[in-house]
Amino acid sequence: MDKPNRIIIIGGVACGPKAAARARRRDPNAEIILVDRGEYLSYAGCGLPYYVGGSVAEIENLQKTSFNLIRDADYFKNVKNIDARIRTNAEQLDREAKSIVLRNLDTGETEQVQYDKLVLATGSSSVVPPISGIDKNGVFVLQNMHDALEIRKRIDAGEVDHVVVIGAGLIGIEIVESFFNHAVDVVVVEKEKQILPSILDAEIAQYVQKELSRDGVEFVTDQTVLAIEGKGKVEKVIVKGREIATDMVIVSAGVRPNTKLARQAGLDIGKTGAIWVNEYLQTSDPDIYAGGDCVECQDLVSGDKIFTPMGTIANRHGRIIGNNVTGDNEAFPGIVGTVIVKALNVNIAKTGLTEDSARKKGMDVETSITPCQNHVHFYPGNKFFLIKMTADRESGRFLGAQLVGPGDIDKRVDVLATAIQFGATLQQTANLDLCYSPPFSHALDGLAHAANNTRNRIDKSAAAISAQQILECIEKSENPPILLDLREEKEAENNPITIGNVINIPLSELRKRINELPRDIDIVCCCTQGVRSYEAMLLLKGEGLDNISFIDGGLKMLY
Amino acid sequence: MDKPNRIIIIGGVACGPKAAARARRRDPNAEIILVDRGEYLSYAGCGLPYYVGGSVAEIENLQKTSFNLIRDADYFKNVKNIDARIRTNAEQLDREAKSIVLRNLDTGETEQVQYDKLVLATGSSSVVPPISGIDKNGVFVLQNMHDALEIRKRIDAGEVDHVVVIGAGLIGIEIVESFFNHAVDVVVVEKEKQILPSILDAEIAQYVQKELSRDGVEFVTDQTVLAIEGKGKVEKVIVKGREIATDMVIVSAGVRPNTKLARQAGLDIGKTGAIWVNEYLQTSDPDIYAGGDCVECQDLVSGDKIFTPMGTIANRHGRIIGNNVTGDNEAFPGIVGTVIVKALNVNIAKTGLTEDSARKKGMDVETSITPCQNHVHFYPGNKFFLIKMTADRESGRFLGAQLVGPGDIDKRVDVLATAIQFGATLQQTANLDLCYSPPFSHALDGLAHAANNTRNRIDKSAAAISAQQILECIEKSENPPILLDLREEKEAENNPITIGNVINIPLSELRKRINELPRDIDIVCCCTQGVRSYEAMLLLKGEGLDNISFIDGGLKMLY
Repeated sequence: MDKPNRIIIIGGVACGPKAAARARRRDPNAEIILVDRGEYLSYAGCGLPYYVGGSVAEIENLQKTSFNLIRDADYFKNVKNIDARIRTNAEQLDREAKSIVLRNLDTGETEQVQYDKLVLATGSSSVVPPISGIDKNGVFVLQNMHDALEIRKRIDAGEVDHVVVIGAGLIGIEIVESFFNHAVDVVVVEKEKQILPSILDAEIAQYVQKELSRDGVEFVTDQTVLAIEGKGKVEKVIVKGREIATDMVIVSAGVRPNTKLARQAGLDIGKTGAIWVNEYLQTSDPDIYAGGDCVECQDLVSGDKIFTPMGTIANRHGRIIGNNVTGDNEAFPGIVGTVIVKALNVNIAKTGLTEDSARKKGMDVETSITPCQNHVHFYPGNKFFLIKMTADRESGRFLGAQLVGPGDIDKRVDVLATAIQFGATLQQTANLDLCYSPPFSHALDGLAHAANNTRNRIDKSAAAISAQQILECIEKSENPPILLDLREEKEAENNPITIGNVINIPLSELRKRINELPRDIDIVCCCTQGVRSYEAMLLLKGEGLDNISFIDGGLKMLY
Repeated sequence: MDKPNRIIIIGGVACGPKAAARARRRDPNAEIILVDRGEYLSYAGCGLPYYVGGSVAEIENLQKTSFNLIRDADYFKNVKNIDARIRTNAEQLDREAKSIVLRNLDTGETEQVQYDKLVLATGSSSVVPPISGIDKNGVFVLQNMHDALEIRKRIDAGEVDHVVVIGAGLIGIEIVESFFNHAVDVVVVEKEKQILPSILDAEIAQYVQKELSRDGVEFVTDQTVLAIEGKGKVEKVIVKGREIATDMVIVSAGVRPNTKLARQAGLDIGKTGAIWVNEYLQTSDPDIYAGGDCVECQDLVSGDKIFTPMGTIANRHGRIIGNNVTGDNEAFPGIVGTVIVKALNVNIAKTGLTEDSARKKGMDVETSITPCQNHVHFYPGNKFFLIKMTADRESGRFLGAQLVGPGDIDKRVDVLATAIQFGATLQQTANLDLCYSPPFSHALDGLAHAANNTRNRIDKSAAAISAQQILECIEKSENPPILLDLREEKEAENNPITIGNVINIPLSELRKRINELPRDIDIVCCCTQGVRSYEAMLLLKGEGLDNISFIDGGLKMLY
């Protein structure tokens, strides 16, 4: 009988355990060793904010299977016949000898172990910016179960009335709700001019920021934290011109791939700083695979290699690595950069490229912002969301979408991610054969409208102006545009437009009252959803008026 | 100046008004005439069951825009400059003269009108089976606003304690909830052996039927209605061997395309009996377009032309026709047959081919049934659903999916419909870059698991047995299999397997207690979600046991 295949997997959180389990499923005889520095295996790190927030009652739940077994070393041994070694550090990778030294962090004992295939699933580590006072008691990075337990303990003990979150990326925004659930005041400090800088374009970020501010979150953008002060424990956070008194600081300033072992062993590192892998997730050493947060991925839209550490990618990597270390040859197709986060009453999602990222790559793009509802207006319980879509102007290829609002954007972003992954055009996206019944959607879902709106912009049958441009015109132009409010009188009265020169003519009366409009001033059509504005714009153009546009995204973008 | 393009559109419900509106948007000068026999234009026919059920408060809401304007003839005139003629019948289409006679149904007056482009959006009509007594007072087809108003009036007057629904297709199943909301007892009679015969495979239909029966719906399958009896008003429905006393009968026995005008004019009719159109939605006369419920569509999966009347297709057709009658040349890409319906606590959706329909076409397919949850188990408020996936065995091409359960299947069916539309393989479907965060999904969504499960069946790494086969083996086989219950002892005690020879060994103890299992009898692994069963099957195979399988879809399929 052949010597069994020995597979050593470094990293026991997401990609590693998945690779181990898959390898075992394919090869009952393989020797599989799973190594992790920490004491918890295969836990849902993405659930930590929800433990802090109280949605997850017991932190053990993050380590349990869906059928309630704790995924500890015994579980891996008994159920999967995997030799899981916790509190164990992997060092001295000798690629020629195909061996690695494993050091037990409790006893200090070391063992040199041979491998046939090695898997690096070493993950990523939070960036800790070099801020004075960052090491004070009360500053956390929420990187592991210990952090979460301690944060929650302090909240439960009534020690936290106020928290400062450093960094308004995905994790920074996600953690806001965790503290709000406990009635802790939150100030988020972001060094960029906008929140979620790598996820959203500025105007969409602005919309999210307004919504969250309305719910009581305070944002300090375009500011770096200069120092964290306090006697022993954190007491205040210093930004330019202001001291923010606080009880706790959460650092969410991004993560960095853990590449120490790979670098020491001379494996190729990509331009992103993460481990380079080919499509089979092999490193530059064909017997060493790598996946999850420590590697870079191929972005299918831009063609670039990018570093985008996500649990979902780590899991998909794990399965493919599990296949390939047991004799298969499966390719990972790459990613389109799909993300989602829930923050209080607003959901935020992105897939593909933002307008900003596409333009930075020199692409000639068109965009549109479409207000949408979950389902038909006559069925109860509707919820609102916005889609900003970006497409290549010449080919009509759909490049990316940002979705925000209380509505079911997880559904739409997944459909759009799928369309992007297959290189869909706007025409194809508008004609997807999606399900329809009144409780679920529209005969034409909002995402089809968004695709059609973008097509209308490309073929110049619709001319939109951004809320930002309108505000600037009103403020600075000598001849500011008229805002033509097309809502019914009661709607307009209940929620009036409070800026600029406003004329209210309901759409249903516009054709009759067209003479009330001046012919020498630009007109911006305004309404809630954009539908009436679009209709009015076409009506007015049809009647020979020029310089007609409408607010991109409707009135919700203006306030 | 050129003579304006005159576009006459026959049919004012979905495709027609959409085509009219789109044509107007593209051509402000066109003369557009929209004709309908009824008195209501552009109403949401799909909302009628929800008016009956009470979710829609006022029936006018079905005729309103999302901004609360009634879409009547005045609306079309004032807002869109469309000449909408209600209570008007289109007759005597003269293709050579490019003219059509319009008869006012109230005055009887006729007018012969010339067209440049004609659009047939004549819709479909409910099939009324030739049952004795079908014309009795109290028998409805729920085809229009009048029917809905009268049904609701009778319910509100307390005249309806019991209803018989003839036909368990989409509409028949959808209408169940409408009556349940008013505490009306419902019996559904279906002539096929299963409910939703063209939407679901038998075992999935059986699951839905069990769920709805549990909630109190009574089903009579494999039976035709022999007669409807009553003195004047309906009093009972006769099926073989039984009289069902009732107050009302709803006929939902399918619909037929309205092709009278097209046939009279000698336009090509397809094999399905609906109007033939090319990809530009042109009939065999290039100046006559047709769309919506009266035409047949190209199924992208099977390659067949099929008749599949859906509001969502009608709307997409309408936009493309509106483009093409104003000089564009846009193709409709075809459909994949996506449907959804909500019935009490179970949602039901389908996209692509069922196993049954694929096999009838001679395809060599593999299938799997995967129990899924909306999102990670540790986040509260989870909901269950099942995915049955069908794929081509040789190419791995994903052909279709059926999704049922209380969970958010609208999201998954839309993603899967998109994947099918682009010809995705199972591998591509499993590797879609979908969004993940604990409130929304899993690191690997259920649909990726479903795709991987189907791959495992194709490559024979997993062997499933259907619940039906197990029941048959237990009943008939001389050597029935052992049901190995892998749940923890408490789970198994709380909800025990009550058939066959059961051995309960929790998965966590299986490796140690493997000697308790006989080696000469087939073993079927059982658990709730199928995950433990799959794991156990591989464990036992790895330990040299043969004839191990697990229940396709988990224990939920067995009861």
